[in-house]
Amino acid sequence: MYDLESIKDPSFVKDLSIKELKELCKDIRSFLVENISKTGGHLSSNLGVVEITVAMYYVFDPEVDKFLFDVGHQSYVHKILTGRAKEFSTLRQYGGLSGYINKSESKYDIWESGHSSTSISAMTGILKSQSDDFHVVSLIGDSSIMNGVALEGINYLGQTNDRRAIIVLNDNKMGISKSVGALSKAFARLRGTAFNRGLKKVLTKILPKCIVHVFHQFKRGIKGLLQQDNIFEDMGFDYYGPYDGHDLKAIIKLFRRVRDAKSPVVLHLQTIKGKGYKPSEDDKTGSFHGVPPFDIETGKPINCDKSKISYSEMVSNYLLNKRETCDFTVITPAMKEGAKLDNFASKYPNDFIDVGIAEEHATVMSAGIALSNKNVVLLMYSTFAQRAYDELLNDIARQNLHVIIGIDRAGIVGEDGSTHHGMYDVSMFESMPNFIIGMPKDNLELVGMFNYAFTVKSPIAIRYPRDNDIRKEIDYNYSIDCTWEMLKEEGDLVVVGYGPMLLQTIEFAERNNVQIAFCNARFIRPIDYKMLDYLFGKYKKIDVLEPIVANGTLFHNILEYKEKMHYNARVYKKSFNPDNIISYGKIKDLYDNYGFSEEDFVKDIKEVELDD
Amino acid sequence: MYDLESIKDPSFVKDLSIKELKELCKDIRSFLVENISKTGGHLSSNLGVVEITVAMYYVFDPEVDKFLFDVGHQSYVHKILTGRAKEFSTLRQYGGLSGYINKSESKYDIWESGHSSTSISAMTGILKSQSDDFHVVSLIGDSSIMNGVALEGINYLGQTNDRRAIIVLNDNKMGISKSVGALSKAFARLRGTAFNRGLKKVLTKILPKCIVHVFHQFKRGIKGLLQQDNIFEDMGFDYYGPYDGHDLKAIIKLFRRVRDAKSPVVLHLQTIKGKGYKPSEDDKTGSFHGVPPFDIETGKPINCDKSKISYSEMVSNYLLNKRETCDFTVITPAMKEGAKLDNFASKYPNDFIDVGIAEEHATVMSAGIALSNKNVVLLMYSTFAQRAYDELLNDIARQNLHVIIGIDRAGIVGEDGSTHHGMYDVSMFESMPNFIIGMPKDNLELVGMFNYAFTVKSPIAIRYPRDNDIRKEIDYNYSIDCTWEMLKEEGDLVVVGYGPMLLQTIEFAERNNVQIAFCNARFIRPIDYKMLDYLFGKYKKIDVLEPIVANGTLFHNILEYKEKMHYNARVYKKSFNPDNIISYGKIKDLYDNYGFSEEDFVKDIKEVELDD
Repeated sequence: MYDLESIKDPSFVKDLSIKELKELCKDIRSFLVENISKTGGHLSSNLGVVEITVAMYYVFDPEVDKFLFDVGHQSYVHKILTGRAKEFSTLRQYGGLSGYINKSESKYDIWESGHSSTSISAMTGILKSQSDDFHVVSLIGDSSIMNGVALEGINYLGQTNDRRAIIVLNDNKMGISKSVGALSKAFARLRGTAFNRGLKKVLTKILPKCIVHVFHQFKRGIKGLLQQDNIFEDMGFDYYGPYDGHDLKAIIKLFRRVRDAKSPVVLHLQTIKGKGYKPSEDDKTGSFHGVPPFDIETGKPINCDKSKISYSEMVSNYLLNKRETCDFTVITPAMKEGAKLDNFASKYPNDFIDVGIAEEHATVMSAGIALSNKNVVLLMYSTFAQRAYDELLNDIARQNLHVIIGIDRAGIVGEDGSTHHGMYDVSMFESMPNFIIGMPKDNLELVGMFNYAFTVKSPIAIRYPRDNDIRKEIDYNYSIDCTWEMLKEEGDLVVVGYGPMLLQTIEFAERNNVQIAFCNARFIRPIDYKMLDYLFGKYKKIDVLEPIVANGTLFHNILEYKEKMHYNARVYKKSFNPDNIISYGKIKDLYDNYGFSEEDFVKDIKEVELDD
Repeated sequence: MYDLESIKDPSFVKDLSIKELKELCKDIRSFLVENISKTGGHLSSNLGVVEITVAMYYVFDPEVDKFLFDVGHQSYVHKILTGRAKEFSTLRQYGGLSGYINKSESKYDIWESGHSSTSISAMTGILKSQSDDFHVVSLIGDSSIMNGVALEGINYLGQTNDRRAIIVLNDNKMGISKSVGALSKAFARLRGTAFNRGLKKVLTKILPKCIVHVFHQFKRGIKGLLQQDNIFEDMGFDYYGPYDGHDLKAIIKLFRRVRDAKSPVVLHLQTIKGKGYKPSEDDKTGSFHGVPPFDIETGKPINCDKSKISYSEMVSNYLLNKRETCDFTVITPAMKEGAKLDNFASKYPNDFIDVGIAEEHATVMSAGIALSNKNVVLLMYSTFAQRAYDELLNDIARQNLHVIIGIDRAGIVGEDGSTHHGMYDVSMFESMPNFIIGMPKDNLELVGMFNYAFTVKSPIAIRYPRDNDIRKEIDYNYSIDCTWEMLKEEGDLVVVGYGPMLLQTIEFAERNNVQIAFCNARFIRPIDYKMLDYLFGKYKKIDVLEPIVANGTLFHNILEYKEKMHYNARVYKKSFNPDNIISYGKIKDLYDNYGFSEEDFVKDIKEVELDD
């Protein structure tokens, strides 16, 4: 067994024999399963790229060449090879090892992805910025490559003739759960027949490089013997594939070959997501994509609190119930598993559309449905919705179309870190015409808000956190109107806020005997001005609680109203400022470390009370 | 000559003979040239689709089928056929006929585009919302189809097998100026040889429909006689083309044929942008894309004020000068002509990249360049930048990369209307970490701000309007620092704002003897707090002038500072609220009609002065 924790830098890989490299792969797999079973993390995607990553370090020169990991959740093997194995016990914890590419961790971490699909465009920039002779290798999955920005990147790269560009298409036929779309079908055709694959594999192994190259030079026709013409060649790439992404020796040969290609390359490798660990290999729904700590024997999650239900699941249950009496379509970009929509999808296959990682398309398609006054529910993570800003603004808001948008994972999401926190959606929607924006304090109010959403004609965004609530059985007919509510009245100071953190804060207050009032501004827009007048009339101080980047959101709007009405109560805010970049870790750890702990609350209130 | 102004609805088209249809096309062309020469507008794109649009109305049933015009600037022929010819004298004027699809104008106007490339996704939504047997025809250009959202839409549509979907690819090899990218190359290959085209044309005309269909059924091989395999077929479409988009009879045949297709269709038609009017046919740079009033004889613009220079051109001149002493790359998404970058592109072809309509790619590519600490200038229209919100946020701002972003056409842009006004960029950038945001009051300050931008390490966005300034000769070394400046000091009230409107407002004040002070907050972020302290100390009232959707922008931030510092001066705002949807018309007409006229200014100041 290789001592992975003793690795200092990746240079050792080049000195290994094929046999030793295979051993290394085996050890890495065991290490990953062992460690991720304790910490949780992205298991399947990393098990799938063990051979590819090892081969990258074997063939290319990491001191010169640059490896980009699209999204970055498949970079664990890369982290191990670059000397970070010993930190895996802290994976995705606050102050520990990041679960993504992190430039501050290692000089080998080149490109921090935001949302998926940016690596090809980033590659074009890196190539443009330096005229040196080096390679940039982008490892990108078959789902990520179908997002708009990746397709724009391919379109650009294909016409550059830059031989330094190598796209490794990691095709596991899965994406986060299952690939969607015409390209996915095209990939399926590329995969070809078993005979074809076998033939190609044999030929690749036995033919000398120069001969295979000759085959690659022929255009349509003769080349068809070895290769089908395909979409990538139509776009100017030298296409190699598909090949077995777990055949280390073959991948090494291929990498050597594509290193000498004369055009940008697409190397299409087929992998098995979760390869080498049976429960994850057998997983067809994506449960092992991002996994909590689990029992290695059974593959079952441990410490799973079954007394609670996630907000995502509550929305899914609600929609399942609502659909019995009301027609609507649910659209989501690659969140079927993440948003627990399997049941809905199975029961109403014609009313459920997972468009894959394609937020812009999902948004415009929703607008197209709403155009005929049909109900449509668009479910997106807050951070994914950022990809569709223009379409949310122009195609839904400007046209005032009634799309009900569920913004899942709003607020801090925990271990995925800075690019995944849902901090901007309120600010986004506040700047757009016509949007109603709400965030419920608990899951009953969540249901009430969705029921309200079905009664209006405007676009409406309902946000909810990546969190759980205790209430499982709910009156699905519960409804609320577009007002605020007082939760508690005492003292001279009122906290105005929204979402479950408001209830959390009431608990803080009660535990610490802080006597203040609480108002639930569950509809962030439009503001309940009647209630706000009441608050300004009764309270001396208003503290606006918004655990987001509060730019043009409730705090600013309350201030604006105060100024307009010449009210006297002082207004304070508790939120993140735009220059804050929130790290990764447990949700509670992050709130605690960024000023939202129980102690912070008591201290803040004291400061506000003393302010004069 | 057909009396186009007497058209009530498009039903008459079906009763015409081919000869009469051709006459109609000719009359429409004359009408377009005649009218647009007086009003200005989108000439070339409309001249290019005359036959296509007439054939659409001849073959399809506009009472049942739905026509989508991607972007919409090529919808003039559609407007004429649906009874709006008589309104063309008011084209693009406030209260007149819109230059785009406008649902409030006509029941035949189905889909209002925001930015380009949304029609395919919209089509999928419309198809999903109704199970009836109708067709949706999307007319989309060869540049628009390469944007991320269009590619996502194609990817989705290709796998639906929905035979009701027809994409008409209007391939003029131009886009706004010239198509870019691998797909563009692929189209060029599709266009094939002259012999091939001729053969296909002949065969299409002479062979009975059923035979041509048979050819379409064969997969790779035999079908190659008539058709090359191509990218669209790889994605699940039935592909027909390329054919001559001005051959009315052929298009009618083709439309009839694709109406009976069994899969989603891509019908690839080649057109000549500006067809039928020599100056626009000869235009290779896109001058006749959006054209001001012009002289029909010469094609030259009339009433062109040569005493002024646009802000776009000043930026272009500045960059040309700056490049002599400083290395940098200029990247722009399809704005080479619009942003007057031809000179720069000619002189520094290796440092200029027009990526086509691909804002997301342009943004990430810029980040990739900045990653190596190389200078990069990204030029985008404000409204186009909305497409790249997530990439601006995650890839540039979060990584704190030094990209200099020129936000052109910031504020009201005039005749293009609601989807093109640049109202949101300040709010967008304010929510993101690390961004410096500025807007100069004139073109000398514009140069100063760009020089400042080259000295910082943060991302910086400099916005400037679609407008002209008088100063042509400029000291390109002029520099400013990140501060505000007092422009005038008198009275108890100070107007704080940015951009040329500030100077305009000083003129209003002087003409009307309004004695107030003016402060130029040319850097919107970071705020010059020293100056702001001074203002709060000296003035009783602060009126914040922001002719944008002021959500989380200067006004809110000044209010927030006031509240924090317990200042007494009252703060007012003059801006658009998010629920305002600004129409089209001359820039001055729009400002006048939305509360920014000279009279409004005087009235507003009076109100503020009376407020207590």
